[in-house]
Amino acid sequence: MRLEKYRIDQHNSELDDKHQKRISFFLEENTSAKNIIQKLVDFQIAIPSWALGTGGTRFGRFSGGGEPRNLEDKLMDIGLLHQLNGSSGAVSLHIPWDIPSDAEKIKNLAGSLNLKFDAMNSNTFQDQAAQEFSYKFGSLQHVDENVRRQAIEHNIEVIKHGEALGSKSLTVWLADGSCFPGQLNFREAFQRTLDSLREIYAALPTDWKIFVEYKAYEPNFYSTTVGDWGQSLLYATKLGEKAFTLVDLGHHLPNANIEQIVSLLLMEGKLGGFHFNDSKYGDDDLTAGSLKPYQLFLIFNELVEGMDARGMNHATDLGWMIDASHNVKDPLEDLLQSVEAIMMAYAQSLLVDRTALKAAQQVHDVALCQEILQHAHRTDVRPLVAEARLRAGAALDPIALFRTLDVRKKLIDERGLKTVATGL
Amino acid sequence: MRLEKYRIDQHNSELDDKHQKRISFFLEENTSAKNIIQKLVDFQIAIPSWALGTGGTRFGRFSGGGEPRNLEDKLMDIGLLHQLNGSSGAVSLHIPWDIPSDAEKIKNLAGSLNLKFDAMNSNTFQDQAAQEFSYKFGSLQHVDENVRRQAIEHNIEVIKHGEALGSKSLTVWLADGSCFPGQLNFREAFQRTLDSLREIYAALPTDWKIFVEYKAYEPNFYSTTVGDWGQSLLYATKLGEKAFTLVDLGHHLPNANIEQIVSLLLMEGKLGGFHFNDSKYGDDDLTAGSLKPYQLFLIFNELVEGMDARGMNHATDLGWMIDASHNVKDPLEDLLQSVEAIMMAYAQSLLVDRTALKAAQQVHDVALCQEILQHAHRTDVRPLVAEARLRAGAALDPIALFRTLDVRKKLIDERGLKTVATGL
Amino acid sequence: MRLEKYRIDQHNSELDDKHQKRISFFLEENTSAKNIIQKLVDFQIAIPSWALGTGGTRFGRFSGGGEPRNLEDKLMDIGLLHQLNGSSGAVSLHIPWDIPSDAEKIKNLAGSLNLKFDAMNSNTFQDQAAQEFSYKFGSLQHVDENVRRQAIEHNIEVIKHGEALGSKSLTVWLADGSCFPGQLNFREAFQRTLDSLREIYAALPTDWKIFVEYKAYEPNFYSTTVGDWGQSLLYATKLGEKAFTLVDLGHHLPNANIEQIVSLLLMEGKLGGFHFNDSKYGDDDLTAGSLKPYQLFLIFNELVEGMDARGMNHATDLGWMIDASHNVKDPLEDLLQSVEAIMMAYAQSLLVDRTALKAAQQVHDVALCQEILQHAHRTDVRPLVAEARLRAGAALDPIALFRTLDVRKKLIDERGLKTVATGL
Amino acid sequence: MRLEKYRIDQHNSELDDKHQKRISFFLEENTSAKNIIQKLVDFQIAIPSWALGTGGTRFGRFSGGGEPRNLEDKLMDIGLLHQLNGSSGAVSLHIPWDIPSDAEKIKNLAGSLNLKFDAMNSNTFQDQAAQEFSYKFGSLQHVDENVRRQAIEHNIEVIKHGEALGSKSLTVWLADGSCFPGQLNFREAFQRTLDSLREIYAALPTDWKIFVEYKAYEPNFYSTTVGDWGQSLLYATKLGEKAFTLVDLGHHLPNANIEQIVSLLLMEGKLGGFHFNDSKYGDDDLTAGSLKPYQLFLIFNELVEGMDARGMNHATDLGWMIDASHNVKDPLEDLLQSVEAIMMAYAQSLLVDRTALKAAQQVHDVALCQEILQHAHRTDVRPLVAEARLRAGAALDPIALFRTLDVRKKLIDERGLKTVATGL
Repeated sequence: MRLEKYRIDQHNSELDDKHQKRISFFLEENTSAKNIIQKLVDFQIAIPSWALGTGGTRFGRFSGGGEPRNLEDKLMDIGLLHQLNGSSGAVSLHIPWDIPSDAEKIKNLAGSLNLKFDAMNSNTFQDQAAQEFSYKFGSLQHVDENVRRQAIEHNIEVIKHGEALGSKSLTVWLADGSCFPGQLNFREAFQRTLDSLREIYAALPTDWKIFVEYKAYEPNFYSTTVGDWGQSLLYATKLGEKAFTLVDLGHHLPNANIEQIVSLLLMEGKLGGFHFNDSKYGDDDLTAGSLKPYQLFLIFNELVEGMDARGMNHATDLGWMIDASHNVKDPLEDLLQSVEAIMMAYAQSLLVDRTALKAAQQVHDVALCQEILQHAHRTDVRPLVAEARLRAGAALDPIALFRTLDVRKKLIDERGLKTVATGL
Repeated sequence: MRLEKYRIDQHNSELDDKHQKRISFFLEENTSAKNIIQKLVDFQIAIPSWALGTGGTRFGRFSGGGEPRNLEDKLMDIGLLHQLNGSSGAVSLHIPWDIPSDAEKIKNLAGSLNLKFDAMNSNTFQDQAAQEFSYKFGSLQHVDENVRRQAIEHNIEVIKHGEALGSKSLTVWLADGSCFPGQLNFREAFQRTLDSLREIYAALPTDWKIFVEYKAYEPNFYSTTVGDWGQSLLYATKLGEKAFTLVDLGHHLPNANIEQIVSLLLMEGKLGGFHFNDSKYGDDDLTAGSLKPYQLFLIFNELVEGMDARGMNHATDLGWMIDASHNVKDPLEDLLQSVEAIMMAYAQSLLVDRTALKAAQQVHDVALCQEILQHAHRTDVRPLVAEARLRAGAALDPIALFRTLDVRKKLIDERGLKTVATGL
Repeated sequence: MRLEKYRIDQHNSELDDKHQKRISFFLEENTSAKNIIQKLVDFQIAIPSWALGTGGTRFGRFSGGGEPRNLEDKLMDIGLLHQLNGSSGAVSLHIPWDIPSDAEKIKNLAGSLNLKFDAMNSNTFQDQAAQEFSYKFGSLQHVDENVRRQAIEHNIEVIKHGEALGSKSLTVWLADGSCFPGQLNFREAFQRTLDSLREIYAALPTDWKIFVEYKAYEPNFYSTTVGDWGQSLLYATKLGEKAFTLVDLGHHLPNANIEQIVSLLLMEGKLGGFHFNDSKYGDDDLTAGSLKPYQLFLIFNELVEGMDARGMNHATDLGWMIDASHNVKDPLEDLLQSVEAIMMAYAQSLLVDRTALKAAQQVHDVALCQEILQHAHRTDVRPLVAEARLRAGAALDPIALFRTLDVRKKLIDERGLKTVATGL
Repeated sequence: MRLEKYRIDQHNSELDDKHQKRISFFLEENTSAKNIIQKLVDFQIAIPSWALGTGGTRFGRFSGGGEPRNLEDKLMDIGLLHQLNGSSGAVSLHIPWDIPSDAEKIKNLAGSLNLKFDAMNSNTFQDQAAQEFSYKFGSLQHVDENVRRQAIEHNIEVIKHGEALGSKSLTVWLADGSCFPGQLNFREAFQRTLDSLREIYAALPTDWKIFVEYKAYEPNFYSTTVGDWGQSLLYATKLGEKAFTLVDLGHHLPNANIEQIVSLLLMEGKLGGFHFNDSKYGDDDLTAGSLKPYQLFLIFNELVEGMDARGMNHATDLGWMIDASHNVKDPLEDLLQSVEAIMMAYAQSLLVDRTALKAAQQVHDVALCQEILQHAHRTDVRPLVAEARLRAGAALDPIALFRTLDVRKKLIDERGLKTVATGL
């Protein structure tokens, strides 16, 4: 479904008085904030096609209802999100879950919804029905050249799908690794993976990027073949200038200082993109900002500082994506919450007084450094983010409007209760 | 399939020379070891019915072949293991995956295979097809009395199945918990769970035990309603003398000192049973002893010390079970490896010179305390464990025999390549 | 030094316009907040006497200057803090670092500064010069009765010092444990510790409480004798109704769900007190709220909910203390930052709409549950906390005033640059 | 003290019968082991000069007695260790704790004890009495050029001390980092550190190496400036071919797969050296092999495999050092235990059937891969390690001889009870 524009206008006009009061007060208190609203308007976070349905747990899926039945439905859902928050104007597809049978048609549909195609995702961690060789023992790292060849060709095929849609990047995430000591020769697995990646790299169009995602562990694993940012950076460096590291917030060992990793990857010119989510224990793919919002802010603080230091464009020079799984919430509401939390962290990081911070760092005024960051994070930036939405033509309170309009019920009416989206 | 006895005899006679040499040397070096062989013979580790097929990962199952098609097949597989190693004379069933349609027949089959029925396992973490209410938001903790009622009745039904088979205990493991802060009132969830457990407890036959299993976290979780040994002990204490804590090696936060937990639970008379497996990062359900064999030994060291201090019978007073998942190995070979590692840890802990250890502890001779434990662990007890197998009529080298007889191939011939065992 | 009242008044009048505008706006937006200001005024957080000097690292102390030279100086520092923020009206002493040679005089000094004596802390983790027996191998757990006796008597002496000062509780924190497997018999160490605690408990005045603090690990440790909340609760339950568990935020394994622990301890009526600090990796004793402010809020959310459910008085029924170490910041500024962060978390938790939360929990509206908590945390409560300070006669902006008045310089002038406070 | 040779001979002849029986049986069972004895003889592990005294805890030092009073005493202690186990023929010095006032004399003393000088260690994490600038806020990363200059010159001075003694490498370990978010600009701290290291690198003699040690965290830290192997590798790569990464087993986040890190660093030709110790929770510097002996074996398994693949000499091409702290054991006994555990892990890794392992890996026979590694680890290699000692002229049972000869008592008689070694 698509929202009629008057629905949003009506919603906004109802809330307008209250909003105007808040944003006036906010801008009075934070005079520099005026200049950052446009940055918030410009910032877009790609929605992954696999996050629109209820996620699966170890034990099963407890489906919601009205889930998208196909790629068109997924685009419609993301279009809806984008109408509501003005910040979800991109989609990240996953092949083979989202093979566009008619690329032109899909591209037109996306265009009509104001959606761009962000990074394409390949899948060599599941065996597909028609597949000749199994990925049980790895894909790009596999000892058998035939398996590697199959996985390489799959990735090249994903690039082609992406080209047809106007995407400009490929994310490679591997479940390659081992379950037990001795199963794998780490060094040879790395070398084989590198060789495979080189073939994929060679197939990249000139203006494309490849993102090498790392992950510390998977359930039942003993090692992963792209296990941390150090390994990913090794691959990216050896591959060449179109290769970058992709950081997923849930892919680290306990207590890792992700903000420092982000800063150093930017320093090396090798940060390519980001997968947002949150977690308490492992790679839980929970709503961004739901557990550690201050960490999310600290990461954005490094992103803004590091990108500015390199003269990068916040909105376009990195791939911003959500990678989440929704088991107990309406996926669309959950995504609205994730985007809101991300926008808030971004807005807060833009509020950081960098001149004062730099000065305090120079004289080791640690208490003041802390005050400066905490001030930005403690500032309630919701009016600012709402103002950005307003200017973008989106809703002042996206979840409230989603609920008022009974969107989920309408989706169920349209698609049925028992639909199950392809994906995790 | 069942092994003809001559197969084992032939295998053993081929290895006998070498074995006799080893065991003689071993007993000469470890004169006290003679007295512990019978303990090794008596020690039995229950095989969970769900571990006989290839386990599922987050992304799919990469099945092996010849997996058991039903409960009878599962018992046959465990019977085979028990023939091979003489230490797997018990089975732990999971309802509804293993509902015995004809209990008497199943009991007889088990009897003919020398198998007992260890703890029964209930399942309220999956929705079954015929089920009226969903466990999406919990079972025994659920805010809706109807859901709790359904979960309670399921557990009582599991007890009845167990009674029919001769089991004497019920393991309750709950995926109850929450995914996000605020979702749950921890205190009320605890109280509701306790109330539900009380109803199940009331249905326990006089000579039964109930094991309350704890787990720190599940994927996508923020809290679990039986999260650690402290919580489990609270439940067990409030329930009464038939209630005990069950320890699963993979259900702890990083770095937890499990051996100390075991010691204190024994002190309180509240340790009920054990789920063996191993892991590097989380609840990975890998082969017991495959990652941290010294920890496994330290745990057994506490088990033996604590049970002896209470005059408990090693073989019968606790429930010993494997809880594992097999993704890249033949499940039967994997289980043979797990049992071997457990038997070795048990044997080593029996070798600990407790008098010397106690004396060294009294004078703070920490270096000597360490030497005493390390000596036991460094001792290669494989000849001893093999000798126990020999005396039990099992095979000197179970995996070698399994491979020589081409058991998996025979199972595939018998059952087919594409069978998928019920369970995880 | 003591601040002349006019200094604070002058500071407040300078900031008053801005503050009035903020608090008016705040109360208009949060109409229910009016009723909670008094709770903020009443809430007092005890300052530990050992936190007033620069903390030591593994490698040495990098001292600041003007550190308190004795107990009187420490009280003066805390009095100063309390003048500044109106929320630090209690002190937690550590014996033998703070033995009051003249209790009456110390009591009077504290009284004149509006300070109460919160929990007394004993020390059996260091050997004192005059001490007969060493705690190298433990204190209350020690195998040698003489050592235990010495440690028991020390604790009783601490109680007596506390009585003379008007304290009403004793915190026992033990570094007892072991460094290597085998060094200790866990069970017997627990029993000896319990016996020792029983003797201390017997010496408690009628209206006193004893807090048993737990800690997962210390550097170089393999086990601690009060290792987690489960163990602490066992001790507290066995000791009796005057014994409670004390939670220190830094004393847990990675990823522990502390808010759930707090909730369950309150449920059991066994939560006694709290040590606030923050950390990224271990027991880092960093400024409260400096790393995980949302976790701090979630903990307060449980504290408020659980205390209200039992009809407890927020201000008086639990012991609220800071336990921190300051290596790179002015200790007084750092403590001001800690108290501010704690007050904010408390204020936010008072803002949680509990009726709406309960209703959302009943219908599994998880997205809404999250919104309710996040709304409270995202609200910028600094005007509210400042208003509470204003009403208490303290400063609107304590750190700003501390800096404007050049307090540290004055302390250095008064006490010297090279003073080193007793304590860590 | 120095042992008279006859003491060792006498000890060995008393144990000889038993040993001969064991080693014969061992070599019969492990026929390939004959060829590896010489490798064990050649393998030397450097003893750090700071590990010879009782280590300090957070709270104080509980000294033993007879600790070395100066560098000569330290060398004598290491000489003694080397006499006992034949595997401690190197020393790793720490400046300024071990400044050799007369280098020639020290060199001669070491020579007479058969000791070489392994890596020199600099210290910029403590302020020394005579030092102009403080390292409170870092050394090589410091924003103040004067501090950096001082730290650089200190390192160059350490190189000079090392040259005079015949050392060939410098280990740089930095406590540089930050305690709070905002305190540091990660990128600039990295760049300043790199610039500083470049100056030190420029002062390296042609045949020297520099080891850049990483560490995930220190108590009270929020970030470290050389935080993980990825960062260390970045420094080492940017510095040049004489720069390498040094791995300390205790310097990782929980659950890190250290063996994989080792393998990849070897692949890159950038592994320089190793600090052995063990731990359960953090950087506990406990006796090597006392907690996770299987992990130690897995690491050696990668070391042997990776060094062989590059044609490296096990004994000389990497720096092997212990880095430990001894709080509750006699430091010399503790070091003997560490060396024994390391030698065992090395011996076991030499026993791995690499041809069979490679073959099993090629066909994904994961169970067999595990069996091959476990077989090597389960083999009791103590006779083999003892045989290597015997051939090297050292003692069959070093700790037993140490105790029989009452060495500690003699050291106390010679040096006094209250001596405290310089160092941690």
